[in-house]
Amino acid sequence: MERRAAVIDLGSNSFRLVVFTWTGDWWKRTDEIYEPVRIGEGLSEGGVLRPEPMERAARTLELFDHFTRATGIEDVRPVATSAIREAGNQAEFLAMAKKRTGLDIRVLSQEEEARYGYLAAVNSTTLSDGVALDIGGGSMQLTRVADRLPTEMRSWRLGAVRMTERFLPGKRQTRKDVKALRTHVQKKMATAPWMRAGGRLVGVGGTVRNLATGVQHLAGQPAFGVQGVEITREALEELIDRLLELPAHDRSKVPGIKPGRADIILAGAVVIDAVMEAGGFDSLEATQAGLREGVFFETLMEGTDPPLIADVRRSAVLNLSAQYHPEHQHTQHVADLSLEMWDALAKAGRFDPAPGERDLIWAAAMLHDVGTAVDYDDHHKHSRYLILNAGLPGHSARETALIAQMARYHRKGSPSMGELAPHGRPGDEDVLNRGSAVLRIAEQLERARDQVVEAADLRLHDGTADLVLKASDDVTLARRSAEREAEIFERAFGVTLSVR
Amino acid sequence: MERRAAVIDLGSNSFRLVVFTWTGDWWKRTDEIYEPVRIGEGLSEGGVLRPEPMERAARTLELFDHFTRATGIEDVRPVATSAIREAGNQAEFLAMAKKRTGLDIRVLSQEEEARYGYLAAVNSTTLSDGVALDIGGGSMQLTRVADRLPTEMRSWRLGAVRMTERFLPGKRQTRKDVKALRTHVQKKMATAPWMRAGGRLVGVGGTVRNLATGVQHLAGQPAFGVQGVEITREALEELIDRLLELPAHDRSKVPGIKPGRADIILAGAVVIDAVMEAGGFDSLEATQAGLREGVFFETLMEGTDPPLIADVRRSAVLNLSAQYHPEHQHTQHVADLSLEMWDALAKAGRFDPAPGERDLIWAAAMLHDVGTAVDYDDHHKHSRYLILNAGLPGHSARETALIAQMARYHRKGSPSMGELAPHGRPGDEDVLNRGSAVLRIAEQLERARDQVVEAADLRLHDGTADLVLKASDDVTLARRSAEREAEIFERAFGVTLSVR
Repeated sequence: MERRAAVIDLGSNSFRLVVFTWTGDWWKRTDEIYEPVRIGEGLSEGGVLRPEPMERAARTLELFDHFTRATGIEDVRPVATSAIREAGNQAEFLAMAKKRTGLDIRVLSQEEEARYGYLAAVNSTTLSDGVALDIGGGSMQLTRVADRLPTEMRSWRLGAVRMTERFLPGKRQTRKDVKALRTHVQKKMATAPWMRAGGRLVGVGGTVRNLATGVQHLAGQPAFGVQGVEITREALEELIDRLLELPAHDRSKVPGIKPGRADIILAGAVVIDAVMEAGGFDSLEATQAGLREGVFFETLMEGTDPPLIADVRRSAVLNLSAQYHPEHQHTQHVADLSLEMWDALAKAGRFDPAPGERDLIWAAAMLHDVGTAVDYDDHHKHSRYLILNAGLPGHSARETALIAQMARYHRKGSPSMGELAPHGRPGDEDVLNRGSAVLRIAEQLERARDQVVEAADLRLHDGTADLVLKASDDVTLARRSAEREAEIFERAFGVTLSVR
Repeated sequence: MERRAAVIDLGSNSFRLVVFTWTGDWWKRTDEIYEPVRIGEGLSEGGVLRPEPMERAARTLELFDHFTRATGIEDVRPVATSAIREAGNQAEFLAMAKKRTGLDIRVLSQEEEARYGYLAAVNSTTLSDGVALDIGGGSMQLTRVADRLPTEMRSWRLGAVRMTERFLPGKRQTRKDVKALRTHVQKKMATAPWMRAGGRLVGVGGTVRNLATGVQHLAGQPAFGVQGVEITREALEELIDRLLELPAHDRSKVPGIKPGRADIILAGAVVIDAVMEAGGFDSLEATQAGLREGVFFETLMEGTDPPLIADVRRSAVLNLSAQYHPEHQHTQHVADLSLEMWDALAKAGRFDPAPGERDLIWAAAMLHDVGTAVDYDDHHKHSRYLILNAGLPGHSARETALIAQMARYHRKGSPSMGELAPHGRPGDEDVLNRGSAVLRIAEQLERARDQVVEAADLRLHDGTADLVLKASDDVTLARRSAEREAEIFERAFGVTLSVR
């Protein structure tokens, strides 16, 4: 049965309603309304929400309320962060919202806000030890993570809107302004020595996502979402230089930067860069998930504390697979056969596996047919499209690109990273060739979808590979079909293939 | 409830198993196995199927049988055409197939085969008066259609495999060989004077589909399936010239031509060209549907004779919409509001509508959100992808491109045909601008998905347009959101917009 919940995030920069839909097998974000309310506009520390932003906020909440009623969503979870948390007239605002929409807004404490950012980070990446950074319009939260659990949590009033108003107001900013902000952040960071305890850094929030897109453009990488995109300090500082050259409202001229963030992205970038410097991090991994997903994970895994997805990478693949393709036995068997062959070749020392290569082949096998949801014709290309665009939490952009290309080449064509090459590393063409080759042969062995080829035993003698099929029935056609892929196999592994 | 049926097409060139899945709301082709059996190899008129092709056929049927058992498909409909129909040892072949697979193969008469081709043509295009052409490996069927009903049907032994063996065997062919084939076809056509009774020509079958792809490549049009692609005689003859330049097995070097058809595509092209000449047709419209869909339509519309889809264009849009997006009330209301505005502008003479323009806007409105099935982010781009790749029967490639681009620009970006421009005609950028503009405003009015804006009454005075909203509730935010799209509206219609 499909269930739905709406999380409403009343942030300092924007309000956003996000609908999550889930069953026992999958979950996904299915709808969204975004409104750049800027409730914190003109709000200085200890100040009050001003009438105009409050009215914008109320109208937006009315819209959200209409939406949930019209679409029949009963589980609605509105949460407010920094700006509303710290407003002197918070009670007045909450009462007005209640009166006009019936919504009971939950104002998150600093700790709660940090916790949701942390949940978003650890449930959408493989972050096990390091720091989760969550920057919004009003505040920034850092969580020290050890063995996937939070050990330290802090929130600072270092949000992008707030820092813009305080350090980088007006049309043009100078290096001096940026330096002042940097110094401010560094002072704050000095109070959190656990920042320097190493590990990886994962970034959450709209500022991080937008910077990730900007960095991809800088690097000439085709953008397909920001999940797993790596932002190096070097790239971030180049981006800061480019942003500084332009007046604030024009900063969306920098490729990838959104118009709605043009005036606050510089402050966000500088805060993040200063945090990276303070913590000694060379790079930050962006994730698509944010506070809203954090709130949702609590719903999805109700009763678990903390609500952690056991294996993020595996779950991401199974989640996507379940959304599109119910033929689990077939895909599972293609995965088994592919890995059986790959393992034999790896064991025989035919190649040096790249880190995680085996996982990528498994993922590609599980997802190779999702594209049939678009159309049977060219479904290998549609699988690629769906994988790239739906994204795979727990995977880097490079890994997602490799999985997508392996799925693309599970039938037809000559494997190549093509336009995704800028996401790859040296040797990735070989990784792709190996994955595509075993996948293609496994797919041919499973043509009848009946798992009649129970095992594919690959026996290697110098220069040749004998693939011995174990089957309970005559499999002449499967054997011949597999043999048609011998050329691609030879190219990938440098051995001639015969099947019997 | 989802139902499934497998149609097995035992053609002279290839065998193909196609799975159709359907509910009360939609149907689609969900799976397929293709095997280039060439059962008719070496079979001359009145001859017998040879042992080797028969054994290939039996193994392929065994594979199909395994497949349907493994996937639990009980409704299996195997049909055989020309080669098996005419084989002296047909009974022997059928008995062997029955023994080895349990399949009861139905051998179609010439009339039945022609009828399925006709059903495919009229249920996947808007062909009302004209001719449906269905060319396979062994035979070619022509059906004269009047008011969507068949009035004449004939089958000739003019299939692509058969004509290759008889007129164009071997590695290289000359203009003289081609001329001999052409003369042969023309003689046959002389016996069907109803060919010259005018109307449109629609083409069915793998040869037609492959030629359509070839013609798209020639014209520099990005290919997204062949549904509705127009093959002019001029383009077809250019393609024939290019094919003639190459040896038979190398003809897949002509862009778009499939390797599996390299040796028989020239004969198919010449037969079609000669038929076009004989019938006085300047162009042929390709359709994705074929004999297999014809058989399926009989299943889908059981009890109706002939099984005709009442409105092919409308059904195609609703079929695609139902597969992806259940929020019918929202999309329907966006369609209503869009067309209300468009009608007012058309009535006021603000532009000259292109033929069918109103239908395109309706289709784009109904399909604008299908992309959320891929991912909410960039769902407008995903809608475009799904529309282009799933295809829309009853629409030309140009119309499908326009609908896809309107859906793409229902939010964000500046409307443009972009890389699809080669599919368009002069003025299509304006059609797109108009469609995107009304769609975008309607979408904003429907932000809350609650149909609270009941009507959008557009009142035109020289140079300005007042959009007066009828609503049962406060719609300030919807109004403001709509006003944000004023610029695109002005660009499309040349009038300034205000909303109240």
